[in-house]
Amino acid sequence: MSIPDAKIHPVATGVAAKTVANHEGPQDLIFHAGWFCPYVQRTWITLEERGIPYQYKEVNPYHKEKHFLDINPKGLVPAVEYKGKALYESLILCEFLDDAYPSYKPTILPADPYTKAYVRIWVDYVTKNLTPGFMRLVQAQDPEKRKEYVGELLAAQRTLAEQVKGPYFLGEEFGLVDVALAPWIARDYIVAQHRGCKREDAGEAWKKYADNLAKRPSVLNTSSDLEHYEEIYGRYLRDEAQSESAKAIRAGRAIP
Amino acid sequence: MSIPDAKIHPVATGVAAKTVANHEGPQDLIFHAGWFCPYVQRTWITLEERGIPYQYKEVNPYHKEKHFLDINPKGLVPAVEYKGKALYESLILCEFLDDAYPSYKPTILPADPYTKAYVRIWVDYVTKNLTPGFMRLVQAQDPEKRKEYVGELLAAQRTLAEQVKGPYFLGEEFGLVDVALAPWIARDYIVAQHRGCKREDAGEAWKKYADNLAKRPSVLNTSSDLEHYEEIYGRYLRDEAQSESAKAIRAGRAIP
Ligand SMILES: N[C@@H](CCC(=O)N[C@@H](CS)C(=O)NCC(=O)O)C(=O)O
Ligand SMILES: N[C@@H](CCC(=O)N[C@@H](CS)C(=O)NCC(=O)O)C(=O)O
Repeated sequence: MSIPDAKIHPVATGVAAKTVANHEGPQDLIFHAGWFCPYVQRTWITLEERGIPYQYKEVNPYHKEKHFLDINPKGLVPAVEYKGKALYESLILCEFLDDAYPSYKPTILPADPYTKAYVRIWVDYVTKNLTPGFMRLVQAQDPEKRKEYVGELLAAQRTLAEQVKGPYFLGEEFGLVDVALAPWIARDYIVAQHRGCKREDAGEAWKKYADNLAKRPSVLNTSSDLEHYEEIYGRYLRDEAQSESAKAIRAGRAIP
Repeated sequence: MSIPDAKIHPVATGVAAKTVANHEGPQDLIFHAGWFCPYVQRTWITLEERGIPYQYKEVNPYHKEKHFLDINPKGLVPAVEYKGKALYESLILCEFLDDAYPSYKPTILPADPYTKAYVRIWVDYVTKNLTPGFMRLVQAQDPEKRKEYVGELLAAQRTLAEQVKGPYFLGEEFGLVDVALAPWIARDYIVAQHRGCKREDAGEAWKKYADNLAKRPSVLNTSSDLEHYEEIYGRYLRDEAQSESAKAIRAGRAIP
């Protein structure tokens, strides 16, 4: 009953392998992760940015083992066990880490209520436009559709870039908008190489912002060797992936 | 350049008209609302539940007037101006009210970090499954599709109902999951009458929970006379609506 997506290199490699090696001992917080997953990387970046103690556990979410489904009935990574209780959903986990570890500074959301809501508006923008826009483009096979989706993605990138103070979204502090977006910047070479959609095509402001995100240590430290992403993204580029996300994009449904 | 959706009864009626009348004076928080809008109702319920001072301003979001677009470039209600600064997105506004008015008790989210994340997971479930599932069913014209969508909606309602402690989601306290869902409960007579999808079809637990939400005073006090919703929902039931949401459902995109 295995789907093609289950075929994944079993462990993190490159710089990310070192980060994993530093987080093997037991901790209050067990991080159920897949080294390859951009949603996982959001939570992972947050853990690394804030120096929160965690135990990394590699999971192949396409195998849907019973213990894993007990933690997340949706069967998706990332998920965490925190003092024996289960939580999931990448962005909810990032906010949870702020709430549960307030003494680890800086937090990933600003303290001021207005600014916090402003950040959430643009995280929502990433969720509704940039993430699905990226996946739609990767999966598109029809040349006309690809052209349309490139245009949409570049327009969304420009809209977000207009809000960026630089070097990060809110200025000097690296925060939740940056976290939400960075994993897709770390993977944007895929649409550059295969769909002709390059960083600079969205303008100077976007290019500069994306470059800043790409070289942030927490992003680099949670990235594996590029060669191992290829087998995974190949399935999306040929539109053969059977993950929940791939099926949702194909069906015109929200990404679960 | 007006779309059919712009034709709306101009003001709240019934019980909601009284609530509006009590909130006409100037306040720090200006609530840009449409009496008919379920997203607006989320924020409105939160304001009423917590007794936060606000000034109600009726907006027809389909007219896209310049002052309104300055507040929300997406051109959607609800939006607020808070001490001259603009915010939007119904659920983000609900959380903002918790953050900006912490002394108004009870808050709409629980204080405990784990429970807060748990609530956000189920609010996310409402956003990804119940809201679009409802609108998809309302707009569906093909009988086969309608059958499929009824099945999906009932399944999602059952899944949520399994988590409900009763009378409200977390037990005695009325909170963000209840707020996120209640406006679609107040409107579920539409799918009962026109799509044969009744509360009791999702089981005893759902029926009881929905009945509790429907009779909550803050829900009643923000509901207008049913007759005035009809002209609006008629456009959705015939799939003639041209709102951003209607177009997104039709195109298989996430609701903006
Ligand atoms: N909305 C989820 C999405 C997580 C997700 O889709 N993870 C993928 C891996 S990148 C997964 O676990 N897929 C398993 C499957 O599709 O069966 C989040 O933000 O955490
Ligand atoms: N995601 C938004 C949705 C708000 C929304 O769609 N509001 C509708 C009225 S119910 C609107 O303003 N529509 C104007 C349009 O579609 O042009 C929220 O949660 O606040």
